[in-house]
Amino acid sequence: MTLPSADTIRRAQTAGAQMASFETPFVFNCWYVAALASELKNELLERMILGRRLVLYRTSDGVPVALDDRCAHRSFPLSKSKLVDDTIVCGYHGFRYDRTGDCVEVPSLTKCPATIGVRAYPMVERGPVVWIWMGAAEEADPSTIPPLSWMESSEWTLNIGYLDLPASYIGLHENLLDLTHIEFLHADTLGAGAPGYSMAPYNTEIGEGVFALSRTVEPASIPGPFAGPMAFGDITTGGRSIRSEFVTPALHQLVARYYDTAEPAEQRRICFISTAHLPTPRDHVSTHYFIVNGRNFALGDAEVTEDLHRGMFEAFAEDVWGLGNVQSVLSATPAEELYEISVKSDTAAVAMRRHIRNLALAEAAERAA
Amino acid sequence: MTLPSADTIRRAQTAGAQMASFETPFVFNCWYVAALASELKNELLERMILGRRLVLYRTSDGVPVALDDRCAHRSFPLSKSKLVDDTIVCGYHGFRYDRTGDCVEVPSLTKCPATIGVRAYPMVERGPVVWIWMGAAEEADPSTIPPLSWMESSEWTLNIGYLDLPASYIGLHENLLDLTHIEFLHADTLGAGAPGYSMAPYNTEIGEGVFALSRTVEPASIPGPFAGPMAFGDITTGGRSIRSEFVTPALHQLVARYYDTAEPAEQRRICFISTAHLPTPRDHVSTHYFIVNGRNFALGDAEVTEDLHRGMFEAFAEDVWGLGNVQSVLSATPAEELYEISVKSDTAAVAMRRHIRNLALAEAAERAA
Amino acid sequence: MTLPSADTIRRAQTAGAQMASFETPFVFNCWYVAALASELKNELLERMILGRRLVLYRTSDGVPVALDDRCAHRSFPLSKSKLVDDTIVCGYHGFRYDRTGDCVEVPSLTKCPATIGVRAYPMVERGPVVWIWMGAAEEADPSTIPPLSWMESSEWTLNIGYLDLPASYIGLHENLLDLTHIEFLHADTLGAGAPGYSMAPYNTEIGEGVFALSRTVEPASIPGPFAGPMAFGDITTGGRSIRSEFVTPALHQLVARYYDTAEPAEQRRICFISTAHLPTPRDHVSTHYFIVNGRNFALGDAEVTEDLHRGMFEAFAEDVWGLGNVQSVLSATPAEELYEISVKSDTAAVAMRRHIRNLALAEAAERAA
Repeated sequence: MTLPSADTIRRAQTAGAQMASFETPFVFNCWYVAALASELKNELLERMILGRRLVLYRTSDGVPVALDDRCAHRSFPLSKSKLVDDTIVCGYHGFRYDRTGDCVEVPSLTKCPATIGVRAYPMVERGPVVWIWMGAAEEADPSTIPPLSWMESSEWTLNIGYLDLPASYIGLHENLLDLTHIEFLHADTLGAGAPGYSMAPYNTEIGEGVFALSRTVEPASIPGPFAGPMAFGDITTGGRSIRSEFVTPALHQLVARYYDTAEPAEQRRICFISTAHLPTPRDHVSTHYFIVNGRNFALGDAEVTEDLHRGMFEAFAEDVWGLGNVQSVLSATPAEELYEISVKSDTAAVAMRRHIRNLALAEAAERAA
Repeated sequence: MTLPSADTIRRAQTAGAQMASFETPFVFNCWYVAALASELKNELLERMILGRRLVLYRTSDGVPVALDDRCAHRSFPLSKSKLVDDTIVCGYHGFRYDRTGDCVEVPSLTKCPATIGVRAYPMVERGPVVWIWMGAAEEADPSTIPPLSWMESSEWTLNIGYLDLPASYIGLHENLLDLTHIEFLHADTLGAGAPGYSMAPYNTEIGEGVFALSRTVEPASIPGPFAGPMAFGDITTGGRSIRSEFVTPALHQLVARYYDTAEPAEQRRICFISTAHLPTPRDHVSTHYFIVNGRNFALGDAEVTEDLHRGMFEAFAEDVWGLGNVQSVLSATPAEELYEISVKSDTAAVAMRRHIRNLALAEAAERAA
Repeated sequence: MTLPSADTIRRAQTAGAQMASFETPFVFNCWYVAALASELKNELLERMILGRRLVLYRTSDGVPVALDDRCAHRSFPLSKSKLVDDTIVCGYHGFRYDRTGDCVEVPSLTKCPATIGVRAYPMVERGPVVWIWMGAAEEADPSTIPPLSWMESSEWTLNIGYLDLPASYIGLHENLLDLTHIEFLHADTLGAGAPGYSMAPYNTEIGEGVFALSRTVEPASIPGPFAGPMAFGDITTGGRSIRSEFVTPALHQLVARYYDTAEPAEQRRICFISTAHLPTPRDHVSTHYFIVNGRNFALGDAEVTEDLHRGMFEAFAEDVWGLGNVQSVLSATPAEELYEISVKSDTAAVAMRRHIRNLALAEAAERAA
């Protein structure tokens, strides 16, 4: 055969046109993670988010600030300027901006005009991350930030990281909703203990903005990065059960349970790993990839934290490598030659990508209205 | 004067519009060299040809394979995947492709759908090179591969190389059909023994798809790279006669004869160097430049092979440098300011470039029909 | 507030549309500095000016030459060719061009056609710099080269430099007409001795093609780069008075006077620094930035020259850094989101930018007619 038929390709392209791709407009009306809380200090940080150049900082009283990174006078980047008493003094002609983006001083004028300013973006700090709202100002509502209470609970111990993903965030969400890739992309890490992972039974939940997938593999060994820290040893009677859920364009939540099936069900020790995958598009082909992991065992044990961190980020780096490879192919393939053939295990991902596209288009229509 | 008249420029541009340039569509219906036979092993090799990303390999039973380098599922590059038992297992979700491009396994499905596959390209191995057909599948006919029997004959000893040419293949064909450049671009190598080379008498053959040029220089010294290996010493009674012929967009054949005019014509020892210049466009501004040289003297002498190789590739590297310089000017010059003024010695090259353009346009029209 | 009102932005954009920006067509009918006199030798120099690739050299009898850097035959760059007896012999097929751009020899032809040539550009050497005319040939008039007699006078000692400016020349002119930036961009160099510089009284001259600004700061310390060389020591009774004037798109002239206000006005020792800022666009986002400084004190003192040079170029490098930062923001900001809010101190710069735009558009209309 050597190629899908013209008909198959046409059907795949028709289906693809309904799904978000790396070229789909961004969803602005959504809270994204702008930075790790630990990144924000009383100094200027340049960061591009959703294609906009921003300057971020934290005031001396601890409040996170995000402004457009362009002086309204002659476009000097505020991120290359000076932070003085929690205001930014432009490095070119000294225009001074306060934390709300208002220009409060023009050195050559006795009286500062009231009409000068740069856009400020709402920021909300929640535990280890700081969220930003880049959308319509009047719709910024902190109550729509996804509740991730475990991130702020003493019953969980966290390990946190950042990866620079040279690919669209769309592919990352899809990656997380089709975990059959664990057996191949993570063959030497997460997938090591679970041959046949891709054939394990799974359950798909698709509803009003809900896109989730659950999969249980039994019996299996406990994957390398976890076996030691969880003190399961090299059992072959292990079980692993993962539920991944697309929550918003900015959050994909995974909850993984590891246990020993040799233990009676009602008395089993279950090790939970909760992971917030927090992709924030830098632009259409690259993503700030924040990751917060929490565990409910070996609480506060620094050595376990370090072991888990190393093991998990080794696997996440494989995703970054894989998605970067896919992006380089997508970016280089002419639209008319591109098609993606979906199979049953893609059902949730396809629905999710249609959802993102609908969000983006509805929002773009609203902006144009 | 300081500039051609507006009229001269207009005429040059009108003529130029009929000739293939680096922007002309590729000729797909043609056998190109995809790789040296020695490059193809039982491992995956990524290579872009005619603007398409391919993955190449050789099966364990020696058969060369070329497939589109993009998994039909989610576009992961097959070249970054794993070759297992002569099939490619996609590095992302494990879709498996056989040597014909058919997908023969989808791990998450019990039964592999019959509709999935990637395009496979016909490959034919001939002596030291492997040819590929990127054009209309139904027109792939190995009998149209140019016969280069000397490449496979024991009466010739070969030396083979690859150069990465940062320029269109069009300029390379033109270079080879206007050997007056030997005196200037190769002043210190091939041209060293032949001042006045550009004024030597020559013969042009232009006919149905035939574009050739012959030139004889007598008396001359034998150029540096050849004098030693051919054992002519530093005679000044030498003769060199070269015929260059455009055969297809993928092949330019040169035959050079070197001899001593002091020897009686009928008893002369004639050293032949046959060179197949095999340009395969990577894209519109860069070319895989394969070169196979054969000689009919000092057969099998490894030292002579090495000496000749070093000398000849030093000269070919000058072409690569020169054509790269030309490409950088062409790429940077706005179309409305560009013109090329041709002179008599360009006659064959101009006809050849018109021929390539006609091939490309006819083919593009056929594809569109 | 956090943002100018839609109305303020619209007004700023309307005003901006009347001003030259980095995207405005070049002004060709103007003498630009092509090179420092010391750069031009009897060898080939490649240089792009106003978006055109040129080859420059000086003949053995000292005459500066500028030609289009593209052989009329097959576009080989003449700058990569050979300079032989004050003619350029193309490195590809040996076409030979004289200093007027005429092709005087085609090696493969007995008689050189009279119709081949490349464009030559008028060049005029004046003291330390060589001017070029890239505009309409019939309008090239050396009497319109700005008279900078001090550059050639023994009453001034010069120090000269070149900076590669990664920004449009427009921003450089604006920079020089709004010296309030000294206090901020040059806080540690030129601005060190003059806090409050941005609030000092100033005088604006705007008239028929005249755009100038004068500013006097008293009392002040003498800035670091000057205090030593001028032998003022660390007085706090100093005065500094600067007049900056846009002369042509290729020249911005500054005259600075430094003195001690403690000395009686009529007997004061006044140290002059005259600076010709000579921006020559390479393309729309980068500029050859030639600078010639002259002083009327410590004439011929090499140590003073060196000290002044180091100090001044440290400050000029800050401009290069600052303007490069601005350019990177401008180049990345979509047109519809860009606006520049001007204040009173921008009056001269805004008028100057409107003037450059008018020059460019009038000229473009003339070329199209």
